[in-house]
Amino acid sequence: MTFRARHLLGVEPLAPADITALLDLAESYVALNRRTVKHGDALEGLTQINLFFENSTRTQSSFELAGKRLGADVMNMAVAQSSVKKGETLIDTALTLNAMQPDLLVVRHPHSGAVNLLASKVDCAVINAGDGRHEHPTQALLDALTIRRAKGRLHRLTVAICGDIAHSRVARSNLILLGKMENRVRLVGPATLMPSGAREWGCEIYEDMAEGLRGADVVMMLRLQKERMDGGFIPSEREYYHRWGLDGEKLALAAPDAIVMHPGPMNRGVEIDGTIADDINRSVIQAQVEMGVAVRMAAMDLLARNLRAERGVRAAGAGVHV
Amino acid sequence: MTFRARHLLGVEPLAPADITALLDLAESYVALNRRTVKHGDALEGLTQINLFFENSTRTQSSFELAGKRLGADVMNMAVAQSSVKKGETLIDTALTLNAMQPDLLVVRHPHSGAVNLLASKVDCAVINAGDGRHEHPTQALLDALTIRRAKGRLHRLTVAICGDIAHSRVARSNLILLGKMENRVRLVGPATLMPSGAREWGCEIYEDMAEGLRGADVVMMLRLQKERMDGGFIPSEREYYHRWGLDGEKLALAAPDAIVMHPGPMNRGVEIDGTIADDINRSVIQAQVEMGVAVRMAAMDLLARNLRAERGVRAAGAGVHV
Amino acid sequence: MTFRARHLLGVEPLAPADITALLDLAESYVALNRRTVKHGDALEGLTQINLFFENSTRTQSSFELAGKRLGADVMNMAVAQSSVKKGETLIDTALTLNAMQPDLLVVRHPHSGAVNLLASKVDCAVINAGDGRHEHPTQALLDALTIRRAKGRLHRLTVAICGDIAHSRVARSNLILLGKMENRVRLVGPATLMPSGAREWGCEIYEDMAEGLRGADVVMMLRLQKERMDGGFIPSEREYYHRWGLDGEKLALAAPDAIVMHPGPMNRGVEIDGTIADDINRSVIQAQVEMGVAVRMAAMDLLARNLRAERGVRAAGAGVHV
Repeated sequence: MTFRARHLLGVEPLAPADITALLDLAESYVALNRRTVKHGDALEGLTQINLFFENSTRTQSSFELAGKRLGADVMNMAVAQSSVKKGETLIDTALTLNAMQPDLLVVRHPHSGAVNLLASKVDCAVINAGDGRHEHPTQALLDALTIRRAKGRLHRLTVAICGDIAHSRVARSNLILLGKMENRVRLVGPATLMPSGAREWGCEIYEDMAEGLRGADVVMMLRLQKERMDGGFIPSEREYYHRWGLDGEKLALAAPDAIVMHPGPMNRGVEIDGTIADDINRSVIQAQVEMGVAVRMAAMDLLARNLRAERGVRAAGAGVHV
Repeated sequence: MTFRARHLLGVEPLAPADITALLDLAESYVALNRRTVKHGDALEGLTQINLFFENSTRTQSSFELAGKRLGADVMNMAVAQSSVKKGETLIDTALTLNAMQPDLLVVRHPHSGAVNLLASKVDCAVINAGDGRHEHPTQALLDALTIRRAKGRLHRLTVAICGDIAHSRVARSNLILLGKMENRVRLVGPATLMPSGAREWGCEIYEDMAEGLRGADVVMMLRLQKERMDGGFIPSEREYYHRWGLDGEKLALAAPDAIVMHPGPMNRGVEIDGTIADDINRSVIQAQVEMGVAVRMAAMDLLARNLRAERGVRAAGAGVHV
Repeated sequence: MTFRARHLLGVEPLAPADITALLDLAESYVALNRRTVKHGDALEGLTQINLFFENSTRTQSSFELAGKRLGADVMNMAVAQSSVKKGETLIDTALTLNAMQPDLLVVRHPHSGAVNLLASKVDCAVINAGDGRHEHPTQALLDALTIRRAKGRLHRLTVAICGDIAHSRVARSNLILLGKMENRVRLVGPATLMPSGAREWGCEIYEDMAEGLRGADVVMMLRLQKERMDGGFIPSEREYYHRWGLDGEKLALAAPDAIVMHPGPMNRGVEIDGTIADDINRSVIQAQVEMGVAVRMAAMDLLARNLRAERGVRAAGAGVHV
């Protein structure tokens, strides 16, 4: 195991060997979760706090189940109703939580960089569960595990990430991870939803879906925020679906055994045709959810090991932790 | 034990022997819950998700405690703030949850039949915690256990169900269960709150409380939704209480040892006089709450046994579950 | 151990020996919480319900972690969305919860005395987590533990409690506890925020911060409810900070080794200067949060012991508990 960091704030600092090790460990949790009695003890007696400054039932639930299945004491903080409303700063919130001595802090925040700031103020391990347009590392890791299982490998694949690239931390983390593993990544979507610096990211950019999907092994659709529709920003739902929604005709241009992914929740008939989403021969959308729990178990297991090692060393070298 | 179903979606499919077996098992949980250390292991390592599309603190709490006391990893899903708001369909929610591999899914939904639809899409056991005007099986079972303990039997009793019958899944599930156990059920309430098809249900119907309560062994009051008041639908609170509210005078017409029930939360002074609700010689309203936890422990214990048996058979017969 | 009560409703009934015993037990939990594996079994198999009629993420989280770390089955009741909204009375809520057989009930309520009323209706141990302007005993106990650790003793200290005394149960509980332990307590704040009967409480009262802080060993700032500002009640934020906010100049008047406390969440720049709050040589604000979890573990541990003793006696003396 090479992964030695205190936190998991992004995929950016991970080496390919770290990614492989984490996915390998996650495989063992996939097997555990498929049993009726699905309980491990990797986090027994540790405290996990889920601190969500943005609602995300899906991601929070995945982390909550992951922690509970590994024996952690898990607490959700409903930040919308919390002290933050009473004028407390992010840093005060961090310091207060830290004083309650969590071991794992899972944080989602609407501002890019907020999770890194928070991590710099606490003594525990921090996992970024999505910060602004920055990173969402466990999403990229669960996508990677899903791809590896479906395609038998995680390298030399052509992956088309399609839709609202500009606002998507999912796209950004996936792009970084897939690049590290030597895949060919294409970004496909309306020019208005393409990040300005994308040309320098070393990936191919397409506005036309037919071109972007041609021969792709993996078609990764992104969620479209409906509130961005009809604002001059992007076309109407109907027009969007016509040009960038994944239907059978467009998918036929990808490789014959291409898989279809979506981070959920889906807008059927907007970014994806319902029939394709439900096609068990093409869609791995449910598998992504399943892999999500397993990957989060693996990530928290590894961070807890690092925490124990770090604290053991400190305790041995510098006396009892005060 | 005869109960072999995957789900508990209603009392309709239960045989009398199933009901008796479930209540007998619940008795052992009544005893457990009265101890200070009240912990069993029937659900150890299993995942229970409470998915409530309608708020119901009382029912959700009862299921949450039931699961935790049996060792399950319990997760509440606050659906009001969830992906459902983001346009996700009920079926997508079901498939997503299913991919997180719960073993027990407890569901409340405002639409009749929604829980059955959801159950058809998942691999785990589903318990209906109330769907529209359809069924609320654990309520009927906890009422049955309360009656059996208070009256010493669950057959050949005259049970008067009083109030808003039309909108009540509680009334409907109770009517079915009590009928199966060979009791005589009367429905009592204003004609405007009586379901149109009630005449064909094989029970007696009364608009007059004096007639409906005469000689009854069990008086089961229903909650009145105050928002239905004064809408031409039913009379004012004052008038309702005068005609259908349970007071000492009306109760005197029932059997001398008649018990009084209410599913809660009560509107004191609307459907029931506070003095009667608090009369420990007549009211079994607190006992209903206590039996609720025990019955839910028994129901989840049985479903988990069936799940294990089903999965064991499948694993042995058809290889490992994939 | 002298503490023999069923409930912890306030510090008023505690003897000095009770307080010392509770703080001594809390010390052992401070040590436990500093370990990575931070799990005890004092509440194993017991049910703890947190019933908050007022939002308080900080206090509720502290109790939740305390219970989980001791092995309790912990359930939070979101009362804002509960039956209380449906017109159920406080007493019905109490009776309903009681019928679910919790062992520990942690209650916060906006009305003084509501927690005592509720405690009189249930069979379990009740902890007051703050009721109106009345008491908040675990806050006073965690402040006491913080002071004892920082100053080496909990007697013969001069403690200045500063700010909005009138609306503060924190001030009231601290005043009582610190008085019992033979400390000299001063109340400092605007006359409009001083309770009318304060002159009879046997403590010194100051409107002027310079006088009130002179030579103090402990400076305890209170949170200012901003909504009370500019209402004729108290001056503007700017004016308030100028006269009663703790800055370096005012703090210099206290004893050279004076510590600074705040129950949180803080309004930096209103009641306290951020630099002082962050000064690890003076501020014990983070320690207060840490001590909070430990004190609540100790309080619940002691109440559970008393409950077991009481129930054991009752079971032995009067047959099985029915």
